[in-house]
Amino acid sequence: MTTFVHPQAICETEKIGKETKIWAFAHILRNATIGKQCNICDHVFIENDVCIGDRVTVKCGVQLWDGLRVEDDVFIGPNATFCNDKHPRSKQYPKSFLQTVIRKGASIGAGAVILPGITIGMDAMIGAGAVITRDVPPYAKVVGNPGRITGYTNLSDSKPFVNTTTTEESERLRVNGAYFYKMPKIKDLRENLSAGEFGSQLPFKPKRYFLVFDVPSHKIRGEHAHKRCSQFLLCVKGSCRVLIDDGKNRQEMLLDKPEYGLEIKPLVWGIQYDYSSDAVLLVFASEHYDSADYIRDYNEFLELISEKE
Amino acid sequence: MTTFVHPQAICETEKIGKETKIWAFAHILRNATIGKQCNICDHVFIENDVCIGDRVTVKCGVQLWDGLRVEDDVFIGPNATFCNDKHPRSKQYPKSFLQTVIRKGASIGAGAVILPGITIGMDAMIGAGAVITRDVPPYAKVVGNPGRITGYTNLSDSKPFVNTTTTEESERLRVNGAYFYKMPKIKDLRENLSAGEFGSQLPFKPKRYFLVFDVPSHKIRGEHAHKRCSQFLLCVKGSCRVLIDDGKNRQEMLLDKPEYGLEIKPLVWGIQYDYSSDAVLLVFASEHYDSADYIRDYNEFLELISEKE
Amino acid sequence: MTTFVHPQAICETEKIGKETKIWAFAHILRNATIGKQCNICDHVFIENDVCIGDRVTVKCGVQLWDGLRVEDDVFIGPNATFCNDKHPRSKQYPKSFLQTVIRKGASIGAGAVILPGITIGMDAMIGAGAVITRDVPPYAKVVGNPGRITGYTNLSDSKPFVNTTTTEESERLRVNGAYFYKMPKIKDLRENLSAGEFGSQLPFKPKRYFLVFDVPSHKIRGEHAHKRCSQFLLCVKGSCRVLIDDGKNRQEMLLDKPEYGLEIKPLVWGIQYDYSSDAVLLVFASEHYDSADYIRDYNEFLELISEKE
Amino acid sequence: MTTFVHPQAICETEKIGKETKIWAFAHILRNATIGKQCNICDHVFIENDVCIGDRVTVKCGVQLWDGLRVEDDVFIGPNATFCNDKHPRSKQYPKSFLQTVIRKGASIGAGAVILPGITIGMDAMIGAGAVITRDVPPYAKVVGNPGRITGYTNLSDSKPFVNTTTTEESERLRVNGAYFYKMPKIKDLRENLSAGEFGSQLPFKPKRYFLVFDVPSHKIRGEHAHKRCSQFLLCVKGSCRVLIDDGKNRQEMLLDKPEYGLEIKPLVWGIQYDYSSDAVLLVFASEHYDSADYIRDYNEFLELISEKE
Amino acid sequence: MTTFVHPQAICETEKIGKETKIWAFAHILRNATIGKQCNICDHVFIENDVCIGDRVTVKCGVQLWDGLRVEDDVFIGPNATFCNDKHPRSKQYPKSFLQTVIRKGASIGAGAVILPGITIGMDAMIGAGAVITRDVPPYAKVVGNPGRITGYTNLSDSKPFVNTTTTEESERLRVNGAYFYKMPKIKDLRENLSAGEFGSQLPFKPKRYFLVFDVPSHKIRGEHAHKRCSQFLLCVKGSCRVLIDDGKNRQEMLLDKPEYGLEIKPLVWGIQYDYSSDAVLLVFASEHYDSADYIRDYNEFLELISEKE
Amino acid sequence: MTTFVHPQAICETEKIGKETKIWAFAHILRNATIGKQCNICDHVFIENDVCIGDRVTVKCGVQLWDGLRVEDDVFIGPNATFCNDKHPRSKQYPKSFLQTVIRKGASIGAGAVILPGITIGMDAMIGAGAVITRDVPPYAKVVGNPGRITGYTNLSDSKPFVNTTTTEESERLRVNGAYFYKMPKIKDLRENLSAGEFGSQLPFKPKRYFLVFDVPSHKIRGEHAHKRCSQFLLCVKGSCRVLIDDGKNRQEMLLDKPEYGLEIKPLVWGIQYDYSSDAVLLVFASEHYDSADYIRDYNEFLELISEKE
Repeated sequence: MTTFVHPQAICETEKIGKETKIWAFAHILRNATIGKQCNICDHVFIENDVCIGDRVTVKCGVQLWDGLRVEDDVFIGPNATFCNDKHPRSKQYPKSFLQTVIRKGASIGAGAVILPGITIGMDAMIGAGAVITRDVPPYAKVVGNPGRITGYTNLSDSKPFVNTTTTEESERLRVNGAYFYKMPKIKDLRENLSAGEFGSQLPFKPKRYFLVFDVPSHKIRGEHAHKRCSQFLLCVKGSCRVLIDDGKNRQEMLLDKPEYGLEIKPLVWGIQYDYSSDAVLLVFASEHYDSADYIRDYNEFLELISEKE
Repeated sequence: MTTFVHPQAICETEKIGKETKIWAFAHILRNATIGKQCNICDHVFIENDVCIGDRVTVKCGVQLWDGLRVEDDVFIGPNATFCNDKHPRSKQYPKSFLQTVIRKGASIGAGAVILPGITIGMDAMIGAGAVITRDVPPYAKVVGNPGRITGYTNLSDSKPFVNTTTTEESERLRVNGAYFYKMPKIKDLRENLSAGEFGSQLPFKPKRYFLVFDVPSHKIRGEHAHKRCSQFLLCVKGSCRVLIDDGKNRQEMLLDKPEYGLEIKPLVWGIQYDYSSDAVLLVFASEHYDSADYIRDYNEFLELISEKE
Repeated sequence: MTTFVHPQAICETEKIGKETKIWAFAHILRNATIGKQCNICDHVFIENDVCIGDRVTVKCGVQLWDGLRVEDDVFIGPNATFCNDKHPRSKQYPKSFLQTVIRKGASIGAGAVILPGITIGMDAMIGAGAVITRDVPPYAKVVGNPGRITGYTNLSDSKPFVNTTTTEESERLRVNGAYFYKMPKIKDLRENLSAGEFGSQLPFKPKRYFLVFDVPSHKIRGEHAHKRCSQFLLCVKGSCRVLIDDGKNRQEMLLDKPEYGLEIKPLVWGIQYDYSSDAVLLVFASEHYDSADYIRDYNEFLELISEKE
Repeated sequence: MTTFVHPQAICETEKIGKETKIWAFAHILRNATIGKQCNICDHVFIENDVCIGDRVTVKCGVQLWDGLRVEDDVFIGPNATFCNDKHPRSKQYPKSFLQTVIRKGASIGAGAVILPGITIGMDAMIGAGAVITRDVPPYAKVVGNPGRITGYTNLSDSKPFVNTTTTEESERLRVNGAYFYKMPKIKDLRENLSAGEFGSQLPFKPKRYFLVFDVPSHKIRGEHAHKRCSQFLLCVKGSCRVLIDDGKNRQEMLLDKPEYGLEIKPLVWGIQYDYSSDAVLLVFASEHYDSADYIRDYNEFLELISEKE
Repeated sequence: MTTFVHPQAICETEKIGKETKIWAFAHILRNATIGKQCNICDHVFIENDVCIGDRVTVKCGVQLWDGLRVEDDVFIGPNATFCNDKHPRSKQYPKSFLQTVIRKGASIGAGAVILPGITIGMDAMIGAGAVITRDVPPYAKVVGNPGRITGYTNLSDSKPFVNTTTTEESERLRVNGAYFYKMPKIKDLRENLSAGEFGSQLPFKPKRYFLVFDVPSHKIRGEHAHKRCSQFLLCVKGSCRVLIDDGKNRQEMLLDKPEYGLEIKPLVWGIQYDYSSDAVLLVFASEHYDSADYIRDYNEFLELISEKE
Repeated sequence: MTTFVHPQAICETEKIGKETKIWAFAHILRNATIGKQCNICDHVFIENDVCIGDRVTVKCGVQLWDGLRVEDDVFIGPNATFCNDKHPRSKQYPKSFLQTVIRKGASIGAGAVILPGITIGMDAMIGAGAVITRDVPPYAKVVGNPGRITGYTNLSDSKPFVNTTTTEESERLRVNGAYFYKMPKIKDLRENLSAGEFGSQLPFKPKRYFLVFDVPSHKIRGEHAHKRCSQFLLCVKGSCRVLIDDGKNRQEMLLDKPEYGLEIKPLVWGIQYDYSSDAVLLVFASEHYDSADYIRDYNEFLELISEKE
């Protein structure tokens, strides 16, 4: 099986992988690079400084401009639109075009618009009609104009974790190294009070605490794992959602009661998002602050996980 | 007059009605079906499992994917974009594609994006640039991202109904089987009070009441008619808009005062929408609850109406 | 046992009942009337046009001005202060002084101030330091400046009624002729919905409904009984408190859920108060409106009750 | 110098200290006890079961009822009014009257009303016209109806503590055993973040945390000292005021920033009040919960302090 | 007719005017001064450094302490209470007592409490039970704890001025030198706009403007007249009430629309109060700023007015 | 250099300027007019009644319908979509199509949608994915669905003007004929007050004032210059942004304090926008109202400016 080019297509490049198909009225310029088993549909236009990986689908009506980098297994929906100049004026050309990167496995919805200079993370899912104005982290689902993260893909459970503890013992989550705690809560005539004993009711004696507050609802926090440090999260006011990921399983939970605690052990990737406007997140850490303890690159995190096994 | 196919078009199907025109750079696959007197403009792409009715216009830059059903007299604006997979990933194909249906007479605005599996109701008007994420009822006008209903088309009166009763008698609306009531209201120094006598001031002795509350402002309620049951609506807090339709006349009114009552007799199609955040809708029903009494399909409703005549 | 007058008191009237005591430094003018078994403490001053019933206590430092009517069994705390002129100016006298009436069994707290022309209802309890600017209904407890009703006295249960129904059957209250209903409630993805079938789930087929809304939180509503009409109350938005009274038992409940219903049969005295700012009270009545069916005077209500027995 | 009794006064007791004066139209019953150097002004009435300390002033128009205990150096303003029955009804006497205690040095403002069964703490200052409905802690200043604490008297500094730390070291307060910490705060474009290391940035490794939230603005919390336990307070949302007292110095500070920490060592009396409606107070405790570790009586606290020296 | 002293009263002063009456159990110390035609009721106590004018009424249970100055025609209601020490402690005496002044014609309601050092303005009306914590301007009506101004007495019209202009001409108010203007207002679909031409639509060409904003709702502004300067007031946001007074007539109006203008000519006393929280008052002045042009003392204003006549 | 037409393009018109290029799969109808040095990219479709100026870029996937007027130097991004019928229905044609005009130098972002009948002003910048539902003024930057102005392009300073006056003298702005004033502001314990003397502190004696209020946040006001009239702007409540333009320099400032004044002399183009919901703009004008003094067309303004030089 070799490359197929429709007779009505114009394919000027020779750098095309095996089993890739180019359909009618598509036009590909001379220096573009396209991997194997790709599908380039009708009315697509591809400029010169474009690299496309393997098994990529580009649906009809899409243009890929100079500066685009599309990794393997990406899906680009029909009429999805890219740019490479932030403030385009006719006949005025920037010194170099902004590079847009679509990471492995990502999906760009039909009619979505991607502003220039943006990176779409691994396996991210851009909704149809979304207008993407900032970088999209791995696995994020984004919709709207401007695009907002509404959740994450590839979760092991279809629904967020729901508290089922009836005792005061902690509850092990599906994600390795994560535990849910329901702390005692006392409500009397005067006010509410929630308390926990370190080392007995809580899983460790903390060496550090920190508070997170005033987080805009569309902001994403965390996005890292620790090498040695454990954390214990309590949303003491308002609510937020937490995504945890051990490299194999991914799970989401809502911290919306001050008595809900979440323990996150080392080598668990964590993200907090969808904060309510009044949210205050209290975190206990088992270790002193050490910038070297942070893993901030998701690919590096996956490598570390696989080394451990 | 027979079918016209531009020399630069690729038309692989033979199932095309009379007087239909296919323009330059359009590409139609072998098994597509297209009715008569259609206009398929430049750069359109049509897959195999697509059925298009008569007198349909498909403007430039549109793709119609497997699973699309386009009824008669539909207008599809330029660069309007469809999908047939909710979570598309490259090289991963669902067992069957979601079917999108565009009902008779509907209009899809320029650059609109229609998510997969959606039905656009009869004569609906989708605004330019709208992103449609849920079914659109007949006659609805939708704009925005995500798309929100802002009104209805084909109304018999250009403006919403305005109360003109000066007596305490009910006022017959243009829609057959719908009556407006202005219930007595007493306002004294202390508070407001509105009251009504069943069977004398109100048109029937109810067998049931229900309350609708906490409705998000973008939700649409109702969308059905009854075979035997009459209803009496009062928006006792906040406001909502009501659309009523006897199959011939369509009319809209704003329930924004607790003393405004709306009687809806059997075989009147009713929709409530645009609830204020604090709205509480009180409904009296003349019959006990009976799921068999509901007509939920608008076409079935139209048939029932015509049988009666 | 006869009247006792302390040697240091000045008692100019002779219209004093048996066993009444007048203490030191009190001063009672010539035309005042005082019943039997009263206790008039030190430093009290009583003018001429004052009538005091039997078994009344007037603590130290109180003055009773022309126009005061004090019924049997009233308690007037120390330094409680009365007036008989709304806009007093020195040497300017109104044609007649405003009459203040303290009904049987009422209690005026220490240091309370009662504005002129006010009636304090039977068994009412005026808190220490309260400033009373409007009439006080029977049994009401009032505190603050200006005085606000915070509850009612003489309740049969120390706490408000609490729902204990586990079935869908109604629950009989301690007050004769009052029943609590927990209506079915359906909560789905879209909104909340509560419904009831008249005549089966509800106790009667109503002939009338009325809505009460926009009630300031300090306003008192109801304060009447019906001769023939039954009522069914639902607080469909917000909350209010309901006091019911069969002449023997008095009970209070909080209507704070749309699915809570309260049936009030004829000859039950009812009061609603403490409305939340968004409250809407829906009432079903078993009879058409008939002003002759209302009993608005509490004493008349008590007489009617006793006749029935 | 011996006791002076005005000829127009009625003084039936003989238990009066030296140099005390009783003025005109005052009336003191047989079993009352009055200390030395007191001043009992015109129109005062004192019952039998009343004990008054030394150097007490009772201004005109005041009555002291059975059950009142007035310690040394108390000032009671004119027309201030006391009670000894919560729900007084004429001719209905409780088994025993509620005892009201006015601690040493307290001042009761003119026209104030004190409800029964209340203790006014040492040196407290009750404003003119205040209506006191609950116990008043030592040194508190109270005004309004109902009375609310607006501050404290006898502070070592005339103004609240103001942060002057420029380093990250803690700042020793004037009150022994209390330290102010300014925790690191990082403010970037996205949000605010404040953090602290236990045992290094913070003074101890906590064994317990608790959260205080939903506190009505008029509530007073704390009012105790610990024997062994240290506490570290952070107001992580909103604000509250903290009063600290080592038995000699008293100081107030405003916790209105999440990065402000307050360490309170054992044997420091602490009070928190004036919570904002959204306040969440986070407290770290150095010890596990032990009810025996609490000192809840201020006099006991003072004794313990003096023993230590 | 000469002075009357009740046999049970103790009157140690001889400085009492003709026709004044002193009633039972009243006690007046040796250096007090009391005018003619006064009425001093039972149980009143008057110290030495007290001056009382003519035709003053002091009702029962009142004490007048050293430092009180009571002008002619004042009414003091029963149990009204005064103070002369801001932070009273037993046996601690200030060097001099704070002076409290009650101006001519003022009325102190029953049970009111007046804090020390306060002046109550001419003809002011203090409501029953009010607690007065700051000076009260002439004619003000004050109620509550703490006392707040709710209006003014002695108005020429019983109701606030209501706009009746139908033309664009200004409307002369009952107060001499005050004119109401309704400025043109244009309201279109986009926004509101109000405008005025100086010298034609407005009465003068301004030399100065000033803006008043962020005024707490309980604050009183103005309280002065001008000798030469005219003013033109527009409340361009929110609302405030304006009291105007030409020395004979007094009138109140509500400025609650940006197109309502009020011209105040020289020698008109003006007060603005009851500002809404968002109020912005725009004032045009006919003259440059000149501190000598202000008349800030109401009595001085009255004198100037009478000189003019 | 002459016109280039790609062999796979269909170019039916002959009205094409020099050096213009038409690329593959583009289709241009017979009566279209295209200027010189244009670039018409792949898959573009151009109808007959279309005029395109010089140096225009039309990126891939764009259609230009009958009625479009594109002036010189315009950039139209890929898949940008136009319409010429407000309520399109298949086979129903309006008498004439709505004309859309893209003024000189404007830029239409990728995937933007422009509703019919709209004018996009000179040098305006339409963001990628924006949906334009109303006219766009010159230089405006617009994003979102529906499109909202977020700022203006071509400003002489990259940031809004910041007040640097330390004296009370006015500060000359970069835009000719515009001056910033910081009016005196007095802030005391009670309230704020800002004032100005006309003719000394302010630059002229006004003949007129007007107030602008209740402006929806997305509305644009002003958009004109005056021939003779000077204006002085104060935002006395809330805030708004002001853009000023002397034909050469353009500058933006934020009026967010009542003491900030902006003088705009004749022949300065001014725009106010981004009003806060509570904003009240007070404007003093040096001349009486004269509709002939307004220049409302920006091109006419530019001509007048150039004549002056």
